[in-house]
Amino acid sequence: MPATDPLSATFAALADPTRRAILARLSQGETSVAELSKPFSISAPAVTKHLKVLQRAGLVRQGRQAQWRPCQLQAAPLREAADWVAQYRQFWEQSLDRLEDYLAELQAKPVSDTTLQPARRKRKP
Amino acid sequence: MPATDPLSATFAALADPTRRAILARLSQGETSVAELSKPFSISAPAVTKHLKVLQRAGLVRQGRQAQWRPCQLQAAPLREAADWVAQYRQFWEQSLDRLEDYLAELQAKPVSDTTLQPARRKRKP
Repeated sequence: MPATDPLSATFAALADPTRRAILARLSQGETSVAELSKPFSISAPAVTKHLKVLQRAGLVRQGRQAQWRPCQLQAAPLREAADWVAQYRQFWEQSLDRLEDYLAELQAKPVSDTTLQPARRKRKP
Repeated sequence: MPATDPLSATFAALADPTRRAILARLSQGETSVAELSKPFSISAPAVTKHLKVLQRAGLVRQGRQAQWRPCQLQAAPLREAADWVAQYRQFWEQSLDRLEDYLAELQAKPVSDTTLQPARRKRKP
């Protein structure tokens, strides 16, 4: 993985369902790599690889105790990600509003309207 | 790029500063690929490549008019990304609270405290 800006590293780390599941598990409390690996059908080395991506992005920290090296969630980088995405809130709300307007328009039309029965053709007058 | 879940595709698309800059530009209104390419030091084909990633993730739509094919922001997929990240709000707020507590603790201590003057060694009694 090339050197990258922190926000790109955060988004790249989140771009995998296994890594998101690891973060979800760690949100319930710190745990060992062995415990973390249990619910996944992938190998322990594959889990370790995902953990390394999360650690490089600063989303997971692993303790340094000899036997028990618990992984911990580090949520701070997610704040910048949330702030970045939140800038676009008005745009997805606008598209939801347009969808609602469209549905309201459909409901306002009589049931016999052809938009609800696209299979029937209106005869030309 | 392998077939992937929509949320992973969204995060992967956001994991690049050029792609985020393209979305920021499109949030100001639709524009052509040529206009989009201007502020970037990368080649037009490189911009096109980034646009394809954004299109596959459903974040950009390109018109089909013959000459003028404007790119448009499609913000709907960002909603799921925002919802996912928002689940972790309490965790980054906790870590900010801990930092504030620590700073308050530092301020409450007298200036002569060794924590503010780590270079000086306390003599053993």
